[in-house]
Amino acid sequence: MNQSTERVSFELLRTDGDARRGRLSTPHGTIETPVFMPVGTQGSVKSLTTSQLAALGPGIILNNTYHLMLRPGVELLEQMGGVHKFIGWDRAILTDSGGFQIYSLAEIRKIREEGVEFRSHIDGSKHFLTPEKAVDLQVRMGVDIAMAFDECPAGGLPRAEVERSMELTHRWAARSLTMRRGRTSLFGIVQGGIHHDLRKRSVEALGELPFDGYAIGGLSVGEPKEAMLDTLRYTAPLLPRDRARYLMGVGTPEDLLDGVAAGVDMFDCVMPTRNARNGTLFTSQGKVQIRNARYKADDGPLDPACSCPTCSTVSRAYLRHLYVADEIAALVYNTIHNVSFYLDLMGQIRDSIESDSFGAFLRTFLERTSRSNTPGDTPVEREPFRE
Amino acid sequence: MNQSTERVSFELLRTDGDARRGRLSTPHGTIETPVFMPVGTQGSVKSLTTSQLAALGPGIILNNTYHLMLRPGVELLEQMGGVHKFIGWDRAILTDSGGFQIYSLAEIRKIREEGVEFRSHIDGSKHFLTPEKAVDLQVRMGVDIAMAFDECPAGGLPRAEVERSMELTHRWAARSLTMRRGRTSLFGIVQGGIHHDLRKRSVEALGELPFDGYAIGGLSVGEPKEAMLDTLRYTAPLLPRDRARYLMGVGTPEDLLDGVAAGVDMFDCVMPTRNARNGTLFTSQGKVQIRNARYKADDGPLDPACSCPTCSTVSRAYLRHLYVADEIAALVYNTIHNVSFYLDLMGQIRDSIESDSFGAFLRTFLERTSRSNTPGDTPVEREPFRE
Repeated sequence: MNQSTERVSFELLRTDGDARRGRLSTPHGTIETPVFMPVGTQGSVKSLTTSQLAALGPGIILNNTYHLMLRPGVELLEQMGGVHKFIGWDRAILTDSGGFQIYSLAEIRKIREEGVEFRSHIDGSKHFLTPEKAVDLQVRMGVDIAMAFDECPAGGLPRAEVERSMELTHRWAARSLTMRRGRTSLFGIVQGGIHHDLRKRSVEALGELPFDGYAIGGLSVGEPKEAMLDTLRYTAPLLPRDRARYLMGVGTPEDLLDGVAAGVDMFDCVMPTRNARNGTLFTSQGKVQIRNARYKADDGPLDPACSCPTCSTVSRAYLRHLYVADEIAALVYNTIHNVSFYLDLMGQIRDSIESDSFGAFLRTFLERTSRSNTPGDTPVEREPFRE
Repeated sequence: MNQSTERVSFELLRTDGDARRGRLSTPHGTIETPVFMPVGTQGSVKSLTTSQLAALGPGIILNNTYHLMLRPGVELLEQMGGVHKFIGWDRAILTDSGGFQIYSLAEIRKIREEGVEFRSHIDGSKHFLTPEKAVDLQVRMGVDIAMAFDECPAGGLPRAEVERSMELTHRWAARSLTMRRGRTSLFGIVQGGIHHDLRKRSVEALGELPFDGYAIGGLSVGEPKEAMLDTLRYTAPLLPRDRARYLMGVGTPEDLLDGVAAGVDMFDCVMPTRNARNGTLFTSQGKVQIRNARYKADDGPLDPACSCPTCSTVSRAYLRHLYVADEIAALVYNTIHNVSFYLDLMGQIRDSIESDSFGAFLRTFLERTSRSNTPGDTPVEREPFRE
């Protein structure tokens, strides 16, 4: 474990079209990109112990500042030696800044130039978060990568509103940077809705600031899928070539492929863990609704192409039984598989970029999964992905 | 793994007072006794994957015929190659016969000489279970040890009712034996409430039948604790010396010690797994209610004397955070520890019998746990233990 790095550094190893194969060095290890970061909102990737998660191999996970500041509190985390030590995780951690969660979860809020006032969704207590404080909290938790504090407007707002919000995010970005210190890196978040010119201005404004990496925010927030893809494909290639690019809170396996194709290096999404709890499982042959009666007597593995602890030890029939019988172990087995599926997919994507065959991989993947999605298996719904 | 044994055989290795150190050979491995069997009612020890459970070392677990016959169904289990293969468990399995569960869980029932009619607690469907059918189901599931089908009267019934019920259980015991076959062993269940003479008659009646082992049923069903202990201490030594003795559905760590002192070899109880889910954790220093605010900033292990995967990787503070934040991982970590605690306790008991120091171990254990139960940690309630 490399513990000596000062902040992160990104090395671009190879490209295949716009797709990028890179390497991100962090104070808690080196991460091969493109990478998927499992989401551990409250300091736990839901349903898994830290050891179970570690065995699946991710080099970096995501935690949420919003949740952790409310419970157990950043002061406690400092007292416990930082969030890594508290949760027993010695690899890298990225935290979302709290911006998105305040807009989507908190009960009441007032947005001012200085910051955002909100009430906790847990106990209604009142809090005030500024760009400076959001970064300070992340630095004090000892995370490897902190995110700037942004305003994340809902999809479908009038352009003038999106523009006003974006300008605020830019001013907050500069203020966020004043609190970066120690080994914690800081990524800026590009906004601008689905408007090309706004996205371009946002990239330019943030590109003038010395962020350690750049994220694309404000996608998958209710806009049409085509607008999301169009914005992604337009924006990603504009980002600084020598920094990691992170597409926040997206998405389905197909979305990850689209993101990589557009030049994105980092992803996070609650989809694999949340869908696992809903019994929707990703496989090399498409999605499986494990509660479906057709799996009742199916003694084959969930995904014959998968070697995760679930697929190598139990059958679809047993997974269905556990799910239907409301056993907690169903959530554990399902989560192990879905997280493995996402991590394996990223590994395959990295391999394909290295062999200049990403385009072929993308086509084969889409063809295989769309062909074999059986009619009874309802498709995964699009959900609010950035938890 | 010894797969060749025909049915079980019990070897009594050593005694220390009435306490017995023995060895039970089964078609799925040899079990050192006294032994605790974690309860996996529906084919899953709640909150754990089969691999997680196996890593904790139990040589035998309990499943319930009642639950498995309703879901996923014995026909399916046969089709899947038996319950061991279905759940991915290659060590021994004992099944309760369904008698107790019908009385405590099913919706409507009619008890006749022939058997019991009941409605499923899951979907209200009607079922009829006889002694022959209960054993046949267990044999078809391929379990190592089946239990005879008994009637388990509630505590506090008039003596005449207890006697009538006991006589029925004796007739059902003989009928149960007619369906024993293959490698599945069959244990008889002694009844008789809290009446010494009835218990003696029950032991004599069942002792004349060629069961592979004997269980004490009908305890911890609402009778006063002292009556339970008195009946246990009277009944256990009466049982055949050359067969394994199993105290069903009991109990607290202190109950296990009392049971061993009376000469019991086998135990099962939902307490470690159920209490784990309620946040009540057993430690070498007494019980811990992990939600208690006193553990908020406690960075020590849950039990300093324990080397389970929970105690060796995370702190009380993190366990409290996970529990308070309703994280599924809390249930997993807690269950890992409580099951480990029960298994470790049995190992210590076996060691103490081998060194002729069980009495001293018993006294030290009771003194240590009672002394250090702190006032804020409410005691574990007595629950219906035989799930």
